[in-house]
Amino acid sequence: MNSGPARAVLALSGGVGGAKLALGLSRILAPGDLHVLVNTGDDFEHFGLHISPDIDTLLYTLSGRADPEQGWGLAHETFHVLEALRQLGAQTWFRLGDRDLATHLWRTQQLAAGSPLSTVTADLAARLGAAAQVYPMCDEPVRTMVHVAGGSLPFQQYFVREQCAPQVTGFSFEGIEAATPAAAVTGLLDAGAFAQIVICPSNPFVSIDPMLGIPGLWTALRDSAAPVAVVSPIVAGAALKGPAAKMMAELGLPVTALGVARHYAEHYPGLVDYFVVDQSDVTLAPDIESLGMAMVAAATVMQTLDDRIDLARRVLALAEA
Amino acid sequence: MNSGPARAVLALSGGVGGAKLALGLSRILAPGDLHVLVNTGDDFEHFGLHISPDIDTLLYTLSGRADPEQGWGLAHETFHVLEALRQLGAQTWFRLGDRDLATHLWRTQQLAAGSPLSTVTADLAARLGAAAQVYPMCDEPVRTMVHVAGGSLPFQQYFVREQCAPQVTGFSFEGIEAATPAAAVTGLLDAGAFAQIVICPSNPFVSIDPMLGIPGLWTALRDSAAPVAVVSPIVAGAALKGPAAKMMAELGLPVTALGVARHYAEHYPGLVDYFVVDQSDVTLAPDIESLGMAMVAAATVMQTLDDRIDLARRVLALAEA
Repeated sequence: MNSGPARAVLALSGGVGGAKLALGLSRILAPGDLHVLVNTGDDFEHFGLHISPDIDTLLYTLSGRADPEQGWGLAHETFHVLEALRQLGAQTWFRLGDRDLATHLWRTQQLAAGSPLSTVTADLAARLGAAAQVYPMCDEPVRTMVHVAGGSLPFQQYFVREQCAPQVTGFSFEGIEAATPAAAVTGLLDAGAFAQIVICPSNPFVSIDPMLGIPGLWTALRDSAAPVAVVSPIVAGAALKGPAAKMMAELGLPVTALGVARHYAEHYPGLVDYFVVDQSDVTLAPDIESLGMAMVAAATVMQTLDDRIDLARRVLALAEA
Repeated sequence: MNSGPARAVLALSGGVGGAKLALGLSRILAPGDLHVLVNTGDDFEHFGLHISPDIDTLLYTLSGRADPEQGWGLAHETFHVLEALRQLGAQTWFRLGDRDLATHLWRTQQLAAGSPLSTVTADLAARLGAAAQVYPMCDEPVRTMVHVAGGSLPFQQYFVREQCAPQVTGFSFEGIEAATPAAAVTGLLDAGAFAQIVICPSNPFVSIDPMLGIPGLWTALRDSAAPVAVVSPIVAGAALKGPAAKMMAELGLPVTALGVARHYAEHYPGLVDYFVVDQSDVTLAPDIESLGMAMVAAATVMQTLDDRIDLARRVLALAEA
């Protein structure tokens, strides 16, 4: 722990969208100063393997191994195992790459040997060379269930197998009441180590809510001296990535950055200090500021690595303001 | 069940050596008439997957998919997953091929869903197109332990990881007392469906003993009307494949086909009707016949497919004699 002013940054991230900003932050901060808390509500068991899609996206992105086109999975990947599974008549809706499978096999073996997911993740981050500290939101299993007409679906079945087609009526997070937030992160929070907390442009319902819903976490973030900045995943009425906009429409919420800001204000009152919207959404300022947050406009559509770094720099500047 | 004379054949097999003769048999018999009971004492869990090396060798061989050079694994295989595991620092002593992994993943998934190994194996045989009925020796877990100086090793660790280097003092088969032999096979035995029983040229200690040690099996084979023929895995004082000769030397047994014949005569009295040796071992006839078995000389070194078929034809002719 440094004895000077707090300089570490905590980022909360789901998968591809959040990983973009985390990558930008990692190009500015020292690896020991960037701490990324990652959603594990999407984790699932498949062919007996423990798969942590969001953690893997962060690890692959932060180690420079991610597929640059799709943002998840590994670059230069092959799918020989998946093709053989297809020939056996097995389910192949989840795209298991050959090298990606090694990550799942290794994680599954370590978990079976008794290591908690946090230890396995830290070890994987070191072995892959991730340029940050990466933590699963908790060690306990929490499973995001997507409520749809007539029942509910585990997240990966909704997201990958059903391609987000079913109309959403709500969400629940099985096991969340018994979960405790990542001890390393709460320890740093208690020690006042963070200069800033960044909620990445991830889906508020299925990436961020599972994290903030872990008992004790969001109030600890709120009560920290570090300012909390949210980057809106909705730009000009559309989601940058994934089903966030479709979900908002189906839930009857306005599909705008303001809708996202209201979600945070309603569920986590007093948490958010800065709400970062795209420059195209500056007209939302009065409504967002009426929620008790400072609105910040920035270029939030991250297409290039420079875009990621520029947005990260803009967000980090808020703590110095 | 056919109502004419018995015409089905039961073969007992370990891995590569036994699979050669099973392949020869499969080229003569109709798929419905060849029943192969396979050792599962070598099965093990690796990275959370259930691996059945001998069953896979039989399935790949009998479906024309086996690697022709090594006799195990799949032809035209790649090892991308294994290479990624190596880069993660994981154990890579067991050569997991990419397409082979699909078999393990599929089996593990089916077992986790509650299917017994016999059902999973029958389903895999059908999906791969194996030209025989293939049965695990039992559905219960039986684990071959190799006793060595100072302790014991699970079979795969002895065989693959340690490359058979440790000196062997004996064997045990964990779980064998609670196992019951494959119900499909005992049902056919009870119905008198077999015209012949063939013990393939597999390792007597770690491939055949685990099968014959399952309570009730060897006596049921002995009491069947079908003649039992053993093909010696030792030719001219050496093992055709694997550590059988090394084990015999370490156990203080004569490393000859006679040593193998004595092993069967001592442990399973009255079981063996025909003992098939290589033509180079014909001088053993008096000693083998003194054990109460008819000795048969044949070309037992199977290098080509024709060799396999010729030996199979020679063995099948015994039942007609």
